Amino acid sequence: MTDGGIHIRPLPSPAEVRLGTDIASLAISAVGPDGFSNEDVVVISHKVVSKSEGSTRLLGEVTPTVEAERIAKEQARDPRHVQVILDQSQRLIRAEQGVLISLTHHGFVCANAGVDESNSPDEETVILLPVDPDASARQIRADIVDQTGLPAPAVVITDSFGRAWRIGQVDVAIGCAGLAPLDDWRGRNDRDGRTLAATEIGIADAVAAAADLARSKDSGQPFVLVSGLARFITAEDGPGAAALRRPADQDMFLR
Amino acid sequence: MTDGGIHIRPLPSPAEVRLGTDIASLAISAVGPDGFSNEDVVVISHKVVSKSEGSTRLLGEVTPTVEAERIAKEQARDPRHVQVILDQSQRLIRAEQGVLISLTHHGFVCANAGVDESNSPDEETVILLPVDPDASARQIRADIVDQTGLPAPAVVITDSFGRAWRIGQVDVAIGCAGLAPLDDWRGRNDRDGRTLAATEIGIADAVAAAADLARSKDSGQPFVLVSGLARFITAEDGPGAAALRRPADQDMFLR
Repeated sequence: MTDGGIHIRPLPSPAEVRLGTDIASLAISAVGPDGFSNEDVVVISHKVVSKSEGSTRLLGEVTPTVEAERIAKEQARDPRHVQVILDQSQRLIRAEQGVLISLTHHGFVCANAGVDESNSPDEETVILLPVDPDASARQIRADIVDQTGLPAPAVVITDSFGRAWRIGQVDVAIGCAGLAPLDDWRGRNDRDGRTLAATEIGIADAVAAAADLARSKDSGQPFVLVSGLARFITAEDGPGAAALRRPADQDMFLR
Repeated sequence: MTDGGIHIRPLPSPAEVRLGTDIASLAISAVGPDGFSNEDVVVISHKVVSKSEGSTRLLGEVTPTVEAERIAKEQARDPRHVQVILDQSQRLIRAEQGVLISLTHHGFVCANAGVDESNSPDEETVILLPVDPDASARQIRADIVDQTGLPAPAVVITDSFGRAWRIGQVDVAIGCAGLAPLDDWRGRNDRDGRTLAATEIGIADAVAAAADLARSKDSGQPFVLVSGLARFITAEDGPGAAALRRPADQDMFLR
């Protein structure tokens, strides 16, 4: 951007995504003839990634355990849905007023272990988080390069997470490739020459939140293009959104 | 924006802000001759607001209590700084490894009760959060209208907060006026006609996070202009960022 600014635009909706759908190809079609540049970030709602990878469950094939039945009864939830959430979780952190907060196998803390019933192909299918969202982001990035022959944009895969202490969900990065997930200002100086207080900026999460502003929840627009962040885009895929997950044993609010 | 997108640009740095500095006037100068429109959001880093309102403390005038001395010793912190944090807090939530997380009098949960030493005018001054950031946002918005005679942009006042479970700070809205803080999708349907799972989107927080991407931490750019969010901008000032604070007695992670 000539003014040092950032531009965010939702890309047109793709066709329905199914198991095996090529997400890179859909993204390339959505961005149109101008294509991606290596100064762009392609932000992708995780649901299309999960569907394409088969990270879904048919509730009819789920047999709840006694534990799932007990939690479902206490929380007025579908026991099959609770079972899927338990299957996706290292452990349940809270179960209150129908809300289940869990630590997922990836290490995310979120409601329902990220298992989502909305926008699923039918009432009986629930959509899970991708098994390894950073690997998914790297694969999509590589596929875009393979199919276009052009330098790679960064790729961020998002989900909407609730927050402790604040009302409202905000999108966060659950996977990324080619974007510095954190901007580390620790030990650097402010404009008066004073050392800045511990300041690592969650760049990939801010990009996810920003991208979500550009689409409407019922728009079916999984792809958003963010331009103007060249300073955070890297040729290497980098550490991914894993760098944003605070290890459970270092977290003051996981005990 | 003609493409339905969002544009974010940092505005030029103003002169140093002191007690009594007119923030609206600085913002108007920074945006330049095009001025604001009533489809713009002016995002303002809270430090300039705090300085202009006198929400600062001279450490030399602080006498630590026995409690502050004890905490300071345990956490290897300056007892005067700890005292200022306690003065800004309803209660301390965590004190570990030098990190103090508190519930502020406003109801925010954040490190150091939002008390910040970086970018302060001198080593001996710490900057507090504004006393009532929503009131500050409403005042700045009204002042912009008074001084320009044009319809009001929305105003968002931000701070960088750490998050539970995730590494890295992200800017959030601590005050706002003229922006819907939440987009409430509860009870509305997704594109397949299914009722969406509880989904309130933290719009004002996403705007704060997005705006911070456009500036560098050492840039001294307190003002960022966000365009393209007309659908969330309201003529009325609205409920402010208070709507984003989860009441302590309803929070699963404040017990």
